[in-house]
Parts: sequence; structure tokens; C-alpha cells
Amino acid sequence: MSRTRLEVFSDAVFAVAITLLALNLAVAGPGHGPLLRQVGDHWPAFVAYLISFATIGLIWVNHHALIGNLAVVDRTLALLNLVLLLFVVLIPVDTATVAEYLALGGQDARVAVILYATAFLGMGLSFAGIFEWTLRPGRLQQPVPERARWKARLRFGTASIMYLAAIAAAFFSPPVALAIIGVVPVYYIFERNLAVGSPADAPQQ
Amino acid sequence: MSRTRLEVFSDAVFAVAITLLALNLAVAGPGHGPLLRQVGDHWPAFVAYLISFATIGLIWVNHHALIGNLAVVDRTLALLNLVLLLFVVLIPVDTATVAEYLALGGQDARVAVILYATAFLGMGLSFAGIFEWTLRPGRLQQPVPERARWKARLRFGTASIMYLAAIAAAFFSPPVALAIIGVVPVYYIFERNLAVGSPADAPQQ
Amino acid sequence: MSRTRLEVFSDAVFAVAITLLALNLAVAGPGHGPLLRQVGDHWPAFVAYLISFATIGLIWVNHHALIGNLAVVDRTLALLNLVLLLFVVLIPVDTATVAEYLALGGQDARVAVILYATAFLGMGLSFAGIFEWTLRPGRLQQPVPERARWKARLRFGTASIMYLAAIAAAFFSPPVALAIIGVVPVYYIFERNLAVGSPADAPQQ
Amino acid sequence: MSRTRLEVFSDAVFAVAITLLALNLAVAGPGHGPLLRQVGDHWPAFVAYLISFATIGLIWVNHHALIGNLAVVDRTLALLNLVLLLFVVLIPVDTATVAEYLALGGQDARVAVILYATAFLGMGLSFAGIFEWTLRPGRLQQPVPERARWKARLRFGTASIMYLAAIAAAFFSPPVALAIIGVVPVYYIFERNLAVGSPADAPQQ
Repeated sequence: MSRTRLEVFSDAVFAVAITLLALNLAVAGPGHGPLLRQVGDHWPAFVAYLISFATIGLIWVNHHALIGNLAVVDRTLALLNLVLLLFVVLIPVDTATVAEYLALGGQDARVAVILYATAFLGMGLSFAGIFEWTLRPGRLQQPVPERARWKARLRFGTASIMYLAAIAAAFFSPPVALAIIGVVPVYYIFERNLAVGSPADAPQQ
Repeated sequence: MSRTRLEVFSDAVFAVAITLLALNLAVAGPGHGPLLRQVGDHWPAFVAYLISFATIGLIWVNHHALIGNLAVVDRTLALLNLVLLLFVVLIPVDTATVAEYLALGGQDARVAVILYATAFLGMGLSFAGIFEWTLRPGRLQQPVPERARWKARLRFGTASIMYLAAIAAAFFSPPVALAIIGVVPVYYIFERNLAVGSPADAPQQ
Repeated sequence: MSRTRLEVFSDAVFAVAITLLALNLAVAGPGHGPLLRQVGDHWPAFVAYLISFATIGLIWVNHHALIGNLAVVDRTLALLNLVLLLFVVLIPVDTATVAEYLALGGQDARVAVILYATAFLGMGLSFAGIFEWTLRPGRLQQPVPERARWKARLRFGTASIMYLAAIAAAFFSPPVALAIIGVVPVYYIFERNLAVGSPADAPQQ
Repeated sequence: MSRTRLEVFSDAVFAVAITLLALNLAVAGPGHGPLLRQVGDHWPAFVAYLISFATIGLIWVNHHALIGNLAVVDRTLALLNLVLLLFVVLIPVDTATVAEYLALGGQDARVAVILYATAFLGMGLSFAGIFEWTLRPGRLQQPVPERARWKARLRFGTASIMYLAAIAAAFFSPPVALAIIGVVPVYYIFERNLAVGSPADAPQQ
């Protein structure tokens, strides 16, 4: 099994998912009131679009770094990667659901945000699973040293912990839950040393 | 004709098909009852999504292994591959149809499951056709030895036989037919030596 | 400008277009009569799907062969290729229009088939334009000899002539026009020596 | 981080966005008047399709030239590239909005054209940001000489200035604003030396 083909397939899935996100921004069209008001009422869709785009974008950056450092690719990795993509592919639909229900509040907003956070949690846990797979001897071109592993796990795990926190927060306040989900990509953008497990990146930064 | 381009094109088709699958999970939206109940009523869509995702994912893994072992690529192979993709591309629509009709039962559920199984059967038979093409001398980097061929055919053929069984079962019980279709990817996940015709994989497993 | 990136981009466009084709096959869903009858009434969509899939598939095979033989790629070629893709991208929508209007007959069926044939004609003429571009010295790894050029032009041009014939035929009988459009890919499948301009293919056939 | 994967991912996003554009051309279907009149009334959709296709196509050509000349790829570039793609992905939806509202005139047409121009402006500014990033020593295989930088900035910046002009013009005349947006790709097609920052292109032109 070749690394290149795993990357091409994954990139195509990431790309289609990220492009479908924007379809949620379409307004209802003529006959549904002034366009400016339709766009204004659509703010939850814009917020959800930005959060989903940033999160998928950063997962892509991290996926890139992790896979680019692999020494071998086997069926188990291909299956783990499919599980990751299973959740990536859910994001556009869950983004649409949050966009439709957030402003309505109540139980429905809560359910929508929990579905959304759950898809991201699945993505985070699958990614952690792929990371664990890479720790076995001989699987990375530049292995993660023993003492750096827990630090790396913590880094990758932070996202999953925040998604769990978002699910808990959703029971009290769906907007706060959404804010927690939105903080995750911001955190990773400023966490410059994120790409542990990817020393191949290092000399270029 | 280059192997790479056949792979890039096929991977893009697999990726788009697998991403479109999730669009079937969209709920009707505000004004159609509580979201939680809408999601709950949507269970056939989730089941069909999982089955289709797993099946396309595994076809991708097998396609990957088979094509990666090719020594030559010609027009005939490109055409056989197009026939395979013709069926792959039908999966999202047939998944949506099963999701809509399964819970309704009766004749419509039967027809929906048969359409769904037929698309998978077409995929299985096309894949078998590609496999047969690879058996002619000089076409694989590491040819399948004569004595291993029937075993390999049986492995690849198992899926097609199960899809035929699902079509037969649909006349009595559409849910049983769906269960048979769902067992196929599970079978292939646990059948570790599946990748016959792909010795390139072997040293990495 | 690299050949690889031109190929990856074009392949992705072909792949998305070919996958979107199948979305036209979706039935109206529960509440619109027995599923079997809905599927039966959908026959023009199936016919149009098969024709469009086969035609885009064969354009992809030919594109592959022609681009794979290029020695240089410049901005002019990139622009010609964009014109080709401009028409490829129209096929899913025009396929849907034909599928919806063909069975209705009359003026609407005529207009639908003419739009459909026009998109294919645009594809054929753009492809011919790319072929002409390749004839200038130094542009192909294995140039087409002077005496073989008109033969090759005739081969590539046959499709465009048939699409013109389909447009003319549409004024009398839209189904006959559709049949002419459907014959094109069949002709190219059996025309084994199609891949003129692609000697790279030759030793593998 | 590898240049190839950045290209494959970006190409896939460009390809999906460019293919989704054409979905806006779908007519309402049977029961909405003669097809010929439906197509005729759809002219703003065709105009918007052509403008969006040409603009995304040319951004792809320029992206190709700029990225192909990179000596290094780091996380900052990957993030800048994601910002560019964030705007690319908005084009299909904004194209649909312009197509629906332009012919209606008034405040809605104005808002639609401004949204459309804003997405292109975001694309132009992101591209300028990527270009600035490439100017630091060691980032390009063939660096842009000091004296050529302002000229290159002016070239890349022309598009952004025109999009600002289109936003201003939209307050007086949405069709004029659309015409300004449509002139941009035409300008770049005839500006043969556009590909500054891409000497790799030069010998092939």
C-alpha cells in the first residue's frame, strides 16, 4: 500500500467536505424577504462555516504532517484512516444542522450542538488512534522519542477533551458550547509546535 | 497510459461518492418536529450510511492493492475501471433510496434494497473483471501463482455471492437483506489475507 | 507549469462531474407512488446517465493519452484545457435537463436535447483545439507524423460531426438525436486505434 | 510539509468549486413554462457562471505558477493557503445568489453583487498574502528580484483594486459592477507576463 494514494484519497475527501460546507450558506432566495436581512439572519450559518472550515483545515494540516512522516502504510492504518474520514464526511451535514437550529434555542439547539461536537470528537479520537498506531517501532521515519509521547498525546488529546467539555456545556448553553468548539482551531493555530510526530516539518519552520 | 493517473481519477471518484453519502443524513429541518425525534426516525439513513461508507472504503482498499501491483495499464483496463466506477457512483443515490423506503416496509422497501444490492453486485462483478484481467501474463509486478487463483477468485467472489443472497432475501425480508449487505465489509475487515494479488502489501502487514 | 498538476486538476473535475451525474437518478421519494413505478418512469434519466458517463469516461481516457504524451505545458494549453473543462462541468446539469424533458416530447424535449448535444459539441471542439496545439514542433514527446495528422483530426472530429448531426436530428426527433449522441462513446470504445497522439500507449496495448 | 500535497488538496478544492458552479444553471424543470423561456430567463446565471469559472480558472493557473516555484512549504503557508481556499469555496454560493437576484434589480441586486465582489476580493487579498510570504529569502526556487517586486505586486493587486471598484460601482449599478468583475479574468488572460514569481514557466512560453 502506498502512502501517496492514502494521501490523495484523504485529500480529496477533505477537499469535497470543505467545499460542501459553503453550500449551507445559500439563502432561501427571492420571495423570502430582503436579501440583506436573509444574509443577516444567516449569521449562525456563517459562524458554523468558519468553525468547520478552520477545524477541517487544521485536521488536514496535522494529517499531512503525521502521514508525511510514515515509514510504512498497512491495512490497519488504511482502516483507521477510513474511520477518521467517516467523521470528516459528517461535518457538512452537522454544520448545516447547527446553522439551522442554533438561533432557535431550546432543546433542538442543544441536540444540534451535541451532534456537531460528537462528529468533531469522533474526528479527534480517530486522529489519536492513528497517532497511537504510529508509535510502534519502525512505523515513522523519525520516531517520536519515548519522553515526548505523553506531551504529544496531551496535545492531540486537548481537542477531544474540549469537545467533551462542549458536549457538557451544551446542556446549559448551546452558544457557549459552540464557542468552545470554535476555540479549538484557534488554539492549534497559535500552538506552533503542534506538529509533534512530524520532525520532517521542523527544518522548514 | 499511466497507473498514477488511473489511481488519481479513481480516488477522486471514490472520495466524492463517499462524501456525498453523508448528505443523506440531513434532517428535514425546523418545522418538522423536535430535532431529536427527527434524528431518531432517521436511523435507516445512519445504518445505510455506515454500510455504504464501509463498503466503498473497502473497495478502495482493495482497488488500491490490486492497481498498485500492476505492471501495465491499457485501454481495456481503463474501460473495466470505468465500469467499476459507474457502479460506485450509483451508491449515494441508492443509499438515499434505501434510507427513505426501508422503514416503510412492503414492496417499496423490497425494491429499494434490491436496487441497493444490485449496485453493490455490479461493483463486485466489475472488480472481479479487473482481477481476471490482471491474471494474464505480464500484467502484474508480482503475478498470482496458478494454484492461488481460485482461492483469490473465491475471496473476491464471496461478496458477489452475498449480494445475490441479499437480493433473494429481499423478497422475504428487506431488513435481513440489508443485514447481509452490511456483513460483507465486516467479513473483509477481519479477512486479513484478503489482499491476494497484492504481494506488495505483504511485507508491511 | 507542470503536467502533473494539470492532470490532477482535470482528473478531479472529471471525477466530480461524473459522480454528480448519478444524483439525477434520485427518485422523488415516498408519497410519489410505488417506488418500482417511479424507477420505471425514470428510464430517460438512466439512459442519459449511461450516455453521459460513457462520454465523460472516454474523454477522460483520451485526455489522459494526449496529455501524457506532452513534452511541454504552457499557459495557452492551460487555458485551452479550462475551456474543455467549462463544457465538461455543464454535462451533469444538461443531463438532468434531458432526463426531465425527453419523455415529455415536443418543443421542450427538442430544446433539452439540443442543449445536451451543444455541451458535448463544445467538449469535442475544445479537445480538437488542444490536439491542434500539440501539433506544433516540440510539444509532444512523440510527435504525430505529418501524414497521420488528418487521419487523427478526422478521428477526433468524428464526434463533433456526430454532435452536429444530433442537433440537426433533434428538430425532427429528440430520441433519434439522443441515440446519435449515445453512439459516439460506443464508436470510440470499438475504435481501438483511437489513441493517436499517444504512442506511449502503444506498447501496452 | 510537502508541496505536492498542498497542490493536490488545493486542486481538489478548486475542482469541486468549479464543478459546483454549473449546478446553478439547472432550470426549475417541467411545470415552470417552456424550457426555452426558462433557459432564456436564466441569462444572469450563465453570465455569472462564465465569470466565476474564468476567475477560479485563472486563480488556479496563478496558484499553480506560484506554488510550483516554492523552495519550502511551512505551516504558515498552509494556513495562508487555507484562507485563500476559504474564499474560493464561497464562490459557488455567491454566484448562485448573484444569478438569482441580479435581474430583480434594486437593493437586493446591489447586495448580491457586493457579496460576490467581496468573495473575489478576499481571494485576491489572500493570494497577495501568499505572494508576500514568498518574497522572504530562501522561499522561492527562483526568487523575484527586488526591482521586480513592486511591478509584481501591482499586477497581483490590480484584481483587488478592480474588485473594490466593483463594490463601489454596485451602489450605482449592479450590472456595471458585474461587468467590472468580469473584466478581471479577461485582463489576466491577455496579460501574458502575469506569471511573475514563476520563472519555471518562462522557458515553455
